[in-house]
Amino acid sequence: MTTTATHIVTGMTCEHCVASVTEEIEELPGVRAVQVDLGTGTVSITSDQPLDDAAVRTAVEEAGYQLS
Amino acid sequence: MTTTATHIVTGMTCEHCVASVTEEIEELPGVRAVQVDLGTGTVSITSDQPLDDAAVRTAVEEAGYQLS
Repeated sequence: MTTTATHIVTGMTCEHCVASVTEEIEELPGVRAVQVDLGTGTVSITSDQPLDDAAVRTAVEEAGYQLS
Repeated sequence: MTTTATHIVTGMTCEHCVASVTEEIEELPGVRAVQVDLGTGTVSITSDQPLDDAAVRTAVEEAGYQLS
């Protein structure tokens, strides 16, 4: 079973930004899929178990963006 | 002796875009330096000899952007 959580990330302006955020989040343990909608800043993360919000925040910030 | 030419590139929205354009232009023969102003889209290219505009255009388009 997997769980999917949705976050809003601010500051992404292009597909390179999307790729950076996706790559950082994919490195979190248990992440199966990351989907980003650049227009809305919506990031959907599917993972084996619910992720800690702080871990997601750290990943997003490491990519250079902010969790809303 | 080197020569510097200035172009306007449209579509760059972030530092990743700047890096992509810079990398593609740096691959052109004779290029010594590339400076990009993201705010204005200005790209200044210093090279050993004047570059062919078509070569610059191709490099910019390969990066995924447009020469204005």
